[in-house]
Amino acid sequence: MTTLITGIGELTTNDPAHGVLTDAAVVLDGDRVAWAGPAAGAPDADERVDVEGRAVLPGWVDSHSHLVFAGDRTAEFEARMAGQPYTAGGIAVTVNATRDATDAELAANLARHVSEALRQGTTCLETKTGYGLNVADEARSATIAAEVADEVTFLGAHLVPPGADAESYVDLVCGPMLDAVAGSVRWADVFCETGAFDEEQSGRVLAAAAQRGLGLRVHGNQLGEGPGVQLAVRHGAASVDHCTYLSDDDVAALAGSDTVATLLPACDLSTRQPLAPGRRLLDAGATVALASNANPGSSYTTSMAFCVATAVLQMGLSVAEAVWAATAGGAAALRRDDVGVLRAGARADLQVLDAPSVTHLAYRPGVPLTHAVWRKGIRVV
Amino acid sequence: MTTLITGIGELTTNDPAHGVLTDAAVVLDGDRVAWAGPAAGAPDADERVDVEGRAVLPGWVDSHSHLVFAGDRTAEFEARMAGQPYTAGGIAVTVNATRDATDAELAANLARHVSEALRQGTTCLETKTGYGLNVADEARSATIAAEVADEVTFLGAHLVPPGADAESYVDLVCGPMLDAVAGSVRWADVFCETGAFDEEQSGRVLAAAAQRGLGLRVHGNQLGEGPGVQLAVRHGAASVDHCTYLSDDDVAALAGSDTVATLLPACDLSTRQPLAPGRRLLDAGATVALASNANPGSSYTTSMAFCVATAVLQMGLSVAEAVWAATAGGAAALRRDDVGVLRAGARADLQVLDAPSVTHLAYRPGVPLTHAVWRKGIRVV
Ligand SMILES: [Zn+2]
Ligand SMILES: [Zn+2]
Repeated sequence: MTTLITGIGELTTNDPAHGVLTDAAVVLDGDRVAWAGPAAGAPDADERVDVEGRAVLPGWVDSHSHLVFAGDRTAEFEARMAGQPYTAGGIAVTVNATRDATDAELAANLARHVSEALRQGTTCLETKTGYGLNVADEARSATIAAEVADEVTFLGAHLVPPGADAESYVDLVCGPMLDAVAGSVRWADVFCETGAFDEEQSGRVLAAAAQRGLGLRVHGNQLGEGPGVQLAVRHGAASVDHCTYLSDDDVAALAGSDTVATLLPACDLSTRQPLAPGRRLLDAGATVALASNANPGSSYTTSMAFCVATAVLQMGLSVAEAVWAATAGGAAALRRDDVGVLRAGARADLQVLDAPSVTHLAYRPGVPLTHAVWRKGIRVV
Repeated sequence: MTTLITGIGELTTNDPAHGVLTDAAVVLDGDRVAWAGPAAGAPDADERVDVEGRAVLPGWVDSHSHLVFAGDRTAEFEARMAGQPYTAGGIAVTVNATRDATDAELAANLARHVSEALRQGTTCLETKTGYGLNVADEARSATIAAEVADEVTFLGAHLVPPGADAESYVDLVCGPMLDAVAGSVRWADVFCETGAFDEEQSGRVLAAAAQRGLGLRVHGNQLGEGPGVQLAVRHGAASVDHCTYLSDDDVAALAGSDTVATLLPACDLSTRQPLAPGRRLLDAGATVALASNANPGSSYTTSMAFCVATAVLQMGLSVAEAVWAATAGGAAALRRDDVGVLRAGARADLQVLDAPSVTHLAYRPGVPLTHAVWRKGIRVV
């Protein structure tokens, strides 16, 4: 079964061979893109969908979320908006609620949020464990995540659980916990920050995960400058996420590496931090991704469009840079070349905007612009 | 025909007698609210809608938009995001396109945007003329606006049209133009800013409009400090809009008057200006409204939820203050007490969020949270 999507007013391919095309078409064949290019050259297909001049782009690749959780942290958000600083301490509230929830409750909550994201154009989504913080709850979090998310990251090293000793907890993470989750996850992550895990502890987690063949990610430089970025680069992590506070050396290290700087602008705003230095990173030559960091504490949004608008309006990215960062950038942060791009062979993940160009994502902030979404060749919106 | 809306998890009434209620109900009778209060005391009705614990609040009152226009200014937005400053000069582009459009084209474009706003919960909307800038085009803009918008404002004094002499143009606005629109509009407005109209010219426009019985509004202090705020207060204007740059005297003048300070955060962001000092105004005791300023140049969004989220995340307003400003505040700026409030006798304009509380409007920025909308008692979403 093939589908010709025609009448595309503007097609963002993220494929260097095509770039952005006007008057374009895409052909889907099953769950893959069969063809993308100028409308005049489009092959025929079993069915035809005319998008009447609208803009088409790859689905969002949201490379950072924490959606295996239960419970509510609305009150903490309200307190923060009334002036309380963000300290990451509220994570323990979610840990307790997550441990108390049944598997079915966790799975339903995850599915609800993934579906909400999909309806807004997110066709590839990473999510993390990290609200279990013991072997059993991290293991079931990983299993539940693997059933729904495209990519799963083990974040046993999210926080030292209340009452635990940090060193023994790191031993637990590096041994039994990693063993319990390794079959369900592709990635391991560590929150390298004052109040979470220090450089030495974080390095141990990364080394243990690498030894088991997992890819590496790091939460770093969220609440202040610190060793997270350099550690991530040194370990060859696919991505270091947050990057709100960066020294010149951090920027240079990112620019000279394959480690993607994943920026989380909705989190920066929601914790009343400065916005991450996206312009500075791009100017230095670093690879930048934008992600939602969807989680009930520091950034409870699934809206990649909001992240793109914020990056353009307030972080100095051009629309093209921000759209790339939220699609191909997310794919780079997940070391994938089959998503975030529209070319033959890529996954048939794309979104149609109720607008003639991607510029409207920043030009019309907050307006729901999702007109249609295909994921793995199936139209879901 | 009466409708009982029940299962309301959180009801924001904006009625001092009730404030915010949990476990509440509302009864609609035709186009009016018949009753609002605790669920236990709700009277019976012909039909019943259970909103299953969701939050209900008055529909947005968007007291500032410019939606009688034609043409496109995407390229100007892109240039601005690439570093060009905003100067308001682009308004002339829209004037040319608007003059060239047919009545039907202008009406259809207006209706499309009003409908888009309504689908996002905006149940009362003001819009302005101001892209005609000659007697015939201002008059037809007013007539077209009056057919669709709740409130219409004459903004012949938007900009001196290219080639015209400022003084003679003000004479035209104050005489023949006002005469031509007076039957279709309730309000007159003037853009009092360097590059538009100076204090003396603006004062003449306001005086002429007041003489014809029109209510007054002012665009002021958008691009720098200036006389706009003081002029508005002196003339007893219902609102002065933008207020991005305010002196201490401006803040004090607003606090000591009935003139509402209408803030346009999406415009501030979209023109790369600082955000208006909402916290400072509230602390001084001024009345603050939030509005979209929807227009194709400086703020092309209809999303009041985006304005509320920005006010909370970045302007220091509490969620309650921001929600009030975007509902009852807009009503105050339009000198209305029948909208922006849910109490017996008010217009049956309300929105149901896909969330348990209004806090989620800021906690979940960018996520489309509109679950249902009633306007004049008719369910439109
Ligand atoms: Zn995170
Ligand atoms: Zn305006």
